[in-house]
Amino acid sequence: NYICHMIYVTRRERFNAAHKLWRPDWSDEMNKEVYGKCANKNWHGHNYDLFVTVKGEIDSETGYVVDLKLLSRLVKSEIIDIIDHRNINLDVPFMLGKIASTENLAVGIWNILNPIIDTTFDCKLHSIKIYETENNFAEYFGK
Amino acid sequence: NYICHMIYVTRRERFNAAHKLWRPDWSDEMNKEVYGKCANKNWHGHNYDLFVTVKGEIDSETGYVVDLKLLSRLVKSEIIDIIDHRNINLDVPFMLGKIASTENLAVGIWNILNPIIDTTFDCKLHSIKIYETENNFAEYFGK
Amino acid sequence: NYICHMIYVTRRERFNAAHKLWRPDWSDEMNKEVYGKCANKNWHGHNYDLFVTVKGEIDSETGYVVDLKLLSRLVKSEIIDIIDHRNINLDVPFMLGKIASTENLAVGIWNILNPIIDTTFDCKLHSIKIYETENNFAEYFGK
Amino acid sequence: NYICHMIYVTRRERFNAAHKLWRPDWSDEMNKEVYGKCANKNWHGHNYDLFVTVKGEIDSETGYVVDLKLLSRLVKSEIIDIIDHRNINLDVPFMLGKIASTENLAVGIWNILNPIIDTTFDCKLHSIKIYETENNFAEYFGK
Amino acid sequence: NYICHMIYVTRRERFNAAHKLWRPDWSDEMNKEVYGKCANKNWHGHNYDLFVTVKGEIDSETGYVVDLKLLSRLVKSEIIDIIDHRNINLDVPFMLGKIASTENLAVGIWNILNPIIDTTFDCKLHSIKIYETENNFAEYFGK
Amino acid sequence: NYICHMIYVTRRERFNAAHKLWRPDWSDEMNKEVYGKCANKNWHGHNYDLFVTVKGEIDSETGYVVDLKLLSRLVKSEIIDIIDHRNINLDVPFMLGKIASTENLAVGIWNILNPIIDTTFDCKLHSIKIYETENNFAEYFGK
Repeated sequence: NYICHMIYVTRRERFNAAHKLWRPDWSDEMNKEVYGKCANKNWHGHNYDLFVTVKGEIDSETGYVVDLKLLSRLVKSEIIDIIDHRNINLDVPFMLGKIASTENLAVGIWNILNPIIDTTFDCKLHSIKIYETENNFAEYFGK
Repeated sequence: NYICHMIYVTRRERFNAAHKLWRPDWSDEMNKEVYGKCANKNWHGHNYDLFVTVKGEIDSETGYVVDLKLLSRLVKSEIIDIIDHRNINLDVPFMLGKIASTENLAVGIWNILNPIIDTTFDCKLHSIKIYETENNFAEYFGK
Repeated sequence: NYICHMIYVTRRERFNAAHKLWRPDWSDEMNKEVYGKCANKNWHGHNYDLFVTVKGEIDSETGYVVDLKLLSRLVKSEIIDIIDHRNINLDVPFMLGKIASTENLAVGIWNILNPIIDTTFDCKLHSIKIYETENNFAEYFGK
Repeated sequence: NYICHMIYVTRRERFNAAHKLWRPDWSDEMNKEVYGKCANKNWHGHNYDLFVTVKGEIDSETGYVVDLKLLSRLVKSEIIDIIDHRNINLDVPFMLGKIASTENLAVGIWNILNPIIDTTFDCKLHSIKIYETENNFAEYFGK
Repeated sequence: NYICHMIYVTRRERFNAAHKLWRPDWSDEMNKEVYGKCANKNWHGHNYDLFVTVKGEIDSETGYVVDLKLLSRLVKSEIIDIIDHRNINLDVPFMLGKIASTENLAVGIWNILNPIIDTTFDCKLHSIKIYETENNFAEYFGK
Repeated sequence: NYICHMIYVTRRERFNAAHKLWRPDWSDEMNKEVYGKCANKNWHGHNYDLFVTVKGEIDSETGYVVDLKLLSRLVKSEIIDIIDHRNINLDVPFMLGKIASTENLAVGIWNILNPIIDTTFDCKLHSIKIYETENNFAEYFGK
């Protein structure tokens, strides 16, 4: 196989979840003022697209940086099974007590996946990118 | 302009909403059995894509079947303003007491838009199509 | 090959063109009032997506309703070469003297392709669908 | 739930497969002449998008025409498990001896799914639509 | 909220515009030779997709790097209102006297947005990415 | 034209190809174990999306970093004509003897295009990005 210094591979997974942007220590008016319609008390929701990018060298035996089937399985068991068809504010342990923004989601998912990828695969987590809508997304590189 | 018997024009609008599939007259177990993860008590949500298709003859003066700016304004005021960043089960008058399925959404939206389009424009509502995800959608033709 | 009564095959082609919605027999104010920002005097433009759908029986010898390479070649020579990177109002013979609306475009393209497809292939033109943007499109079935 | 005469729901599934357009009773030259680069002896392949549309009335109890999870499971077991990551010409029983065209695929999949949907669900198969590329697709309505 | 060093958030906006690639100090032949069909005298046009990416730390109070509603409002008032449904060569002040290439558009938009974002928000402009078609795009990072 | 230090422009090209992930020096069982369904003996295939990104300064005369028509022509003659509607394992010289993974494809294409772009254009190859499916892609920056 080709020798190369660093190659980046990405797996997309999807989840559908409810959330609201809401600080319990703020009044309703303050929440509405800061978060607008995202502060709707009874929640709203999204189809989230999650892109997990890892980087590493191509394994000379398999031709893979990482077996994307295994990466997909990991992302599903650690993230999708926890967050899909759930309420991000109420049901997702790593988001409890945090604002359910796309930014916080990206960092929360990084913090869970990064140590596991480090110890499971011969590659490094490079970025977590989350699309909340086709118009809005956030990306985190862990630094 | 061209003379033609019937032409179909479509406007896409989008909304983000929370919902769950849930019958209050069923037990939790029954709801879980029928609706699976869609029955999550604390809701989940979607980015819905709504396609409103009307049909009519091309106006010989304007070249339009309908001014899509006006159709868009109508769909926004009658549907999007009611359902966007809301909870379909709790916040949307035309869905109260109904299962928040894509099928029921399509019929509910048809029932609101059809009489208004009939009296506002020189065209007929042809179909309401709703994508819940990139993999699932429903379409209703009013008959 | 499979015997079937009728199957529908579609070819997408794309073109990029300038246009404005504008009646020369109206005042500037009237054009602005009816067509809004689409009446900008110095033009605007779009990436148009054109979907040409034909219908027919599967040829028992080739497995095709129509060779899409040949359909594509026809659409390119008759439509795309005429309209791509052009001004729809000024440069496209079949649109001269007509409002450059998506509706009129769909009918104009139908009127050119329909007789040629009739005499060239063993299938019938079923519909012409044109996306002006991801939010607006028109479809014409020739009747 | 809403009473309606007929509503259409669609499930998308995807598969990746190799194929070639090739008649064994034709010479290499004839195959190249008719099928062009699609006749490459060593195969080529596609990411196919399969859209299965069923129609029926909304079940007054569940709000569904059909549970799309069950329809998805059926399409996966009857079609995707047979054709995904396979060679359409060599590995797929219902395509053996047929030209591996999108048209034949659509009819072949219809013929398998139609009787099963008929006996399994309270809805009817309405259409099978297959995208071979973003530019080429075929749709079959069973008549 | 999560503490992190740097997170990147992106807002997509869209505009439809006419343009041509054309140097007034060149002959028609020279323009045709260099720019091909993009030099059509009567203009052509595109649906442009504009991605504005900013970077910064997550605000510990709001969970945002930046409120994307405010960023969207800024991009609309400073760029979209100026360029949408316009002629890039004739109507857009920051492009006057420049070749209307995607590259120049990206730099022009950067030069307008960068100082305003700097003084308005607690984040930095990271990149301006513009899709002219689904096949062609340019990205500028300001350095 | 605008003066800038570095701008990135990208051209997308597409190809449809068959492949399998398979080491001839491994047993069938070993291949199945490592590569799963991707090891199907009779091949499978994909619609690949190839994104070629180059970087450079904007030419003060043309407004281009590079004429994308010329870049497209180069990618077509050097890559697409070699790999489109082919078998990656059997028909593509630069992949012979290599595992037909997306990673190796990205590096192989880089190795061909990089020296030619270096000597043909006033810009540098920045990255080669290949989508195998909408869920899986690899990107290589040559270092």
